[in-house]
Amino acid sequence: MPADGILIQRTKLHPQVKLLKALPHLRSATSAVRSPIARKTWSEHIATKVFFCTTTTKGTPAAAPPTTHPQSSTPPTTWGAKKQNRKVKLRSAAAEFIMSNPEIEAQLAPLRERVQEQGNLVRDLKAKGAAELDVKKAVAELKARKKLLEDKELALTPSVVSFDRAKMEDLLKRRFFYDQSFAIYGGITGQYDFGPMGCALKSNILALWRQYFALEEQMLEVDCSILTPEPVLKASGHVERFADLMVKDVKTGECFRLDHLIKQALEKLSKAKEATPALQAECEDIIIKLDGLNKQELADVLAKYNIKSPLTGNDLTEPIEFNLMFATQIGPTGLVKGFLRPETAQGIFVNFKRLLEFNQGKLPFAVAQIGNSFRNEISPRSGLIRVREFTMAEIEHFCDPVLKDHPKFGNIKSEKMSLYSACNQMDGKSASQVEIGEAVATKLVANETLGYYMARIQQFLLAIGIKAECLRFRQHMSNEMAHYACDCWDAEILTSYGWVECVGCADRSAYDLGQHTAATGVRLVAEKRLPAPKTVEVSEIVPNKQALGKTFKKEAKNITDALAKLSLEEITKVEEQLAGDGQYKLTTADGQSHELGKDTISVKHSSKTVHVEEFIPSVVEPSFGIGRIMYSLLEHSFQCRDGDEQRCYFTLPPLVAPIKCSILPLSNNTDFQPYTQKLSSALTKAELSHKVDDSSGSIGRRYARTDEIAIPYGITVDFDTLKEPHTVTLRDRNTMKQVRVGLEEVVGVVKDLSTARTSWEKVTEQYPLFEQQEASSK
Amino acid sequence: MPADGILIQRTKLHPQVKLLKALPHLRSATSAVRSPIARKTWSEHIATKVFFCTTTTKGTPAAAPPTTHPQSSTPPTTWGAKKQNRKVKLRSAAAEFIMSNPEIEAQLAPLRERVQEQGNLVRDLKAKGAAELDVKKAVAELKARKKLLEDKELALTPSVVSFDRAKMEDLLKRRFFYDQSFAIYGGITGQYDFGPMGCALKSNILALWRQYFALEEQMLEVDCSILTPEPVLKASGHVERFADLMVKDVKTGECFRLDHLIKQALEKLSKAKEATPALQAECEDIIIKLDGLNKQELADVLAKYNIKSPLTGNDLTEPIEFNLMFATQIGPTGLVKGFLRPETAQGIFVNFKRLLEFNQGKLPFAVAQIGNSFRNEISPRSGLIRVREFTMAEIEHFCDPVLKDHPKFGNIKSEKMSLYSACNQMDGKSASQVEIGEAVATKLVANETLGYYMARIQQFLLAIGIKAECLRFRQHMSNEMAHYACDCWDAEILTSYGWVECVGCADRSAYDLGQHTAATGVRLVAEKRLPAPKTVEVSEIVPNKQALGKTFKKEAKNITDALAKLSLEEITKVEEQLAGDGQYKLTTADGQSHELGKDTISVKHSSKTVHVEEFIPSVVEPSFGIGRIMYSLLEHSFQCRDGDEQRCYFTLPPLVAPIKCSILPLSNNTDFQPYTQKLSSALTKAELSHKVDDSSGSIGRRYARTDEIAIPYGITVDFDTLKEPHTVTLRDRNTMKQVRVGLEEVVGVVKDLSTARTSWEKVTEQYPLFEQQEASSK
Repeated sequence: MPADGILIQRTKLHPQVKLLKALPHLRSATSAVRSPIARKTWSEHIATKVFFCTTTTKGTPAAAPPTTHPQSSTPPTTWGAKKQNRKVKLRSAAAEFIMSNPEIEAQLAPLRERVQEQGNLVRDLKAKGAAELDVKKAVAELKARKKLLEDKELALTPSVVSFDRAKMEDLLKRRFFYDQSFAIYGGITGQYDFGPMGCALKSNILALWRQYFALEEQMLEVDCSILTPEPVLKASGHVERFADLMVKDVKTGECFRLDHLIKQALEKLSKAKEATPALQAECEDIIIKLDGLNKQELADVLAKYNIKSPLTGNDLTEPIEFNLMFATQIGPTGLVKGFLRPETAQGIFVNFKRLLEFNQGKLPFAVAQIGNSFRNEISPRSGLIRVREFTMAEIEHFCDPVLKDHPKFGNIKSEKMSLYSACNQMDGKSASQVEIGEAVATKLVANETLGYYMARIQQFLLAIGIKAECLRFRQHMSNEMAHYACDCWDAEILTSYGWVECVGCADRSAYDLGQHTAATGVRLVAEKRLPAPKTVEVSEIVPNKQALGKTFKKEAKNITDALAKLSLEEITKVEEQLAGDGQYKLTTADGQSHELGKDTISVKHSSKTVHVEEFIPSVVEPSFGIGRIMYSLLEHSFQCRDGDEQRCYFTLPPLVAPIKCSILPLSNNTDFQPYTQKLSSALTKAELSHKVDDSSGSIGRRYARTDEIAIPYGITVDFDTLKEPHTVTLRDRNTMKQVRVGLEEVVGVVKDLSTARTSWEKVTEQYPLFEQQEASSK
Repeated sequence: MPADGILIQRTKLHPQVKLLKALPHLRSATSAVRSPIARKTWSEHIATKVFFCTTTTKGTPAAAPPTTHPQSSTPPTTWGAKKQNRKVKLRSAAAEFIMSNPEIEAQLAPLRERVQEQGNLVRDLKAKGAAELDVKKAVAELKARKKLLEDKELALTPSVVSFDRAKMEDLLKRRFFYDQSFAIYGGITGQYDFGPMGCALKSNILALWRQYFALEEQMLEVDCSILTPEPVLKASGHVERFADLMVKDVKTGECFRLDHLIKQALEKLSKAKEATPALQAECEDIIIKLDGLNKQELADVLAKYNIKSPLTGNDLTEPIEFNLMFATQIGPTGLVKGFLRPETAQGIFVNFKRLLEFNQGKLPFAVAQIGNSFRNEISPRSGLIRVREFTMAEIEHFCDPVLKDHPKFGNIKSEKMSLYSACNQMDGKSASQVEIGEAVATKLVANETLGYYMARIQQFLLAIGIKAECLRFRQHMSNEMAHYACDCWDAEILTSYGWVECVGCADRSAYDLGQHTAATGVRLVAEKRLPAPKTVEVSEIVPNKQALGKTFKKEAKNITDALAKLSLEEITKVEEQLAGDGQYKLTTADGQSHELGKDTISVKHSSKTVHVEEFIPSVVEPSFGIGRIMYSLLEHSFQCRDGDEQRCYFTLPPLVAPIKCSILPLSNNTDFQPYTQKLSSALTKAELSHKVDDSSGSIGRRYARTDEIAIPYGITVDFDTLKEPHTVTLRDRNTMKQVRVGLEEVVGVVKDLSTARTSWEKVTEQYPLFEQQEASSK
């Protein structure tokens, strides 16, 4: 099984990635950053057992008194998700606690100051047009200071309930939500199989995603190939740049991620007894600046401190760029190199022409795709957060670059969002609560379309059960963002791994379509009507076909084809050269050169009235990492019963719960069978997933078992069921309360509950409570 | 772009595959055959433009008078799919026509006789225990004769409407149902991107599949990794055997499938002017026997006839076995070889222990998985029928090998099926109409579980719109079937490519779990209670740990581990050897050998009362090729309007149609806008996919456009809509009839139609017909 290098979690952007960001024309720069399965996670180093705010067993957090948020220009209000009937205070509970606790704020104040100081330095350097390297180093220092602040903030965050990751992971494994792939063969790191519960949860999340985005926004959903030929990923920049640096043990071949390795080695060095204060400072300085160092600089560090393999003490190779795509060969010749796609987006871009045509040539339109992508991580860790094979749901919204308003923006403009702007980040502040309408009006968020998607992403995440107080949108700082993107916000969810980037939402301008146009010569453009027709000068090459045919025979067609593709600039050059020495040297598609004389071609000028103009559309791209969202949701919904820490369960909302209902006969008395069978058939007819548990074991123990797999409702068939009028009990997982409902009615009630057409509260008003409490355990 | 070899379609089983079938212990034998994307398609050579039976524009075939089917022991009846409200004569229309037409039957009679004669010869040879090679050759000849008969039958099949594949493909491309992947980069053969319509159709088919199988049968659905490490596929037999033979052009590297190449070359040779009758006979003989030849025999043919590259005339290499799996490396070391899975099934088998545990240790249970698989075809052709990347939906039903009855068999036992038994195939007969209950009772179908799935497969295929008269279940002949499978039936659908295997349904016994158990030492078994406890003799090895530790130091643990794994037989051997020369030579897991003496180990005998016994479960496996099913469905539902051959459309049932409803304002009059917007919101709320077409163009032209993408219902907003009471027209795609419905009611009507809760006939009874006919074209 694979050598996975050393166990260090990533805490910073990899230097290679940062390097990419500085190169404006490379797609991979964003690829490495923009996607939910991107190369870094904030605060990933936070220990397994952390404390953070969580809800009571009822699923709604204790409401905090409304206080004015000092960092925000808008007063805090109860916001969002009215549709979902949620009554959640959406201000960050953590931030609120800190703000109202002067003691804690006093501890944070010096850290905030240090961030702001460095932020100002970066601003200064940029304003002065300082050397790129200086800016990079200042930014690296800024990030290090931000991280210290954020870690401290999280450490001071109060918790209602402590979160025990190991306990949750044990349950997930035991009830096969998901588990390591090929475990009986020793397993492969970074690959997971979803068992029945994980698979159903995932497919319910995806079904809701389709409803929220593909259906409600009338998107064009596509399903493109995973195997991608090399030229496509060359154009996108992935072949050249989608890489991490690593070194190998020269004897064992063991691989290590270079930045992780150096950090670990220098930390060890500076903690050694014999370390001088000078050496310690030196090491600390390098660790802070690690992100800003290039391949050579990193190699120099390796050499200077004589760093060896931490496992064997053997020598290491020079740094190697390891491309993170899985390579293979398509077809039997061995000549067609292909890769497993590292993102689904490229499949949409290369189909742009067909999709525009399908939409009858009209903009804007959005294309959605759900599918698997692959990244050959050097040493994947952190469970579902960083994996080699993952499901993404991506949207590419194509629009006119000068018209980025959105017709439905009005619907969501009052949505309150926790926005962690680049500015706040530079100033050492926390996220602010802002209405998205205001954020767009003040240009904090670049345009309506981007703002619209951010609000819809939030609505979706809240609908599936992500806790509002653990969700924020973090803006990329200008140095993080690819040059061509004008704005980018990541939806980050707070988990025991820290804030995890789960959805990227970027305005990517015209980059990708431009790259594929350049690579293929196929113009991936749209047209729009000009306000008024305009007259343009047209220059074109007129081939003398007869003369060409005579001179060049079979080559004549290639020549006329090549002539037809010349740009305006090139035509001007042709004209100049014909006027000069009377010859123009043309290179055809097959690479051959031909000298063309005045007898074979001429340049004609004319004027033409045009009514439309061509342009490359802009792209706004929300990109969802389904595995990360799912993992965060599991953390947010994990609970243990008060007073019984062994009885754990998930409060997943019925909409996404893997199974909607259980049927439990009170005992294995055969009289109950006709009723359980009848209920099972009726639930199937109503398209409700359910599970009959007629195994032995007390009813309490069986309830606990259904709670573990997040079944929200349970129907129990008991002796009263046998009497007329036939009734059953219906139990709610979260409250453990039961009501008594008619046998004929109960399936309808479960259907309404599962599709959010009614709530448990309403059901308890409608039907009599069933008082007999379940035994906690037996 | 890839060299794709020569364009010859496959008509027979590849010799390699046949070879595999003769090897009982190799999983790949079936892998190559059992799956929907298997290595052969019957009658693939049928020309692009063929004629076959099809329906009238109403979607129901003209009912033929009931005649007794001479080949069947049961009288033909109207069968199947009452639930779906279909009134289709399910006897094969083709077979029926032939039977009732003595002239055609006279033409077929000699062909039938030739098949039967050869079938009898094969039976004889097998009965006599003839040499394997002789049997193989006789079977090859039998297949060739069967094929001649089948081709003739199809050629004589009457057609109501001729089917023009090129025309359909043009429409599929133009409206982007699906198209070649990466076309702007030149495209890759055997890879397709699904556009909005193809993607929605596919996802509707899969949703219905989930409902029919995962939900109704309460299966455990899983979602396993695509990247699979080599040892897993070694155990399954794919690494060694999942291959086709090919040769390469020594100069250009162009690759050719060996059997295709030889067939083409010999056909050319025998058609040459100078060919003697002797040479012609020789060539024909080889072509017929091609399937039965092994690698060396094929190489000999190549040499004997001095066959060169058909493209360049260059020499060819020796035959090379080309493994059809895409290989890659997992992790950075380059040491962990992996493949893209060639089928989804292995992911289920390696998770068997977890799944059995999830099911509380109880059998039977079924596991479902939908996902992509990959096969690196040498030269993929035939559109969606043979591709390199495809979606499968597989079920593995695990059961007690001696209890293969099915609790729900009674529900489907009267389902009439078109069964093309191995016996009928040997006798030159057609498929017979048989009730599945009778087929199981007479042992034609091996057991209830297999029969149950066959009936459910049929119900599913009919529900999505496959024509009953173009569906049959073909039994694998004993020589086609892997030794460990006790019965196997393929659901074959008649298309313009001939009969295409779309769903495999095999009883695979305990093969796969056995292989993975052998490879990993993890016992993939279930337990069952014995009718009565029994006493068994137990032999075990007792290691003298102290002595072992002293003698073998660090190796002692490996030795005790290896001892614990010894089988009963091996323990007996240990005992014998210890009793003999007092030494036993043990090989540990790391391959080292150790001599163990009497001082270190001894053998102990005792007796034990056991209440349960362990067994390896049997597996019944229905395996669906979603792309093939989808393609067949498109062919079956392709229609052109009477009298207007340019106006083509698809009669896809509303349940699977990509978009359920269109909204067409009569003109671009702005008064219509509030109504179209209101309707669009209401349809979204009802979760109905829809498309607003407010483009210019006559209403007739817009209807035609919605017909092309199979939208079953259209709502038109006209001037009457503006008046009170507000009404709209509702149009049915298949009949082009319209009714007038209240604005408030229409969404409910469309919802009921789309979910099959009502029918168009009922709607026309309930609402007034709207008489104004649409212009056919303008």
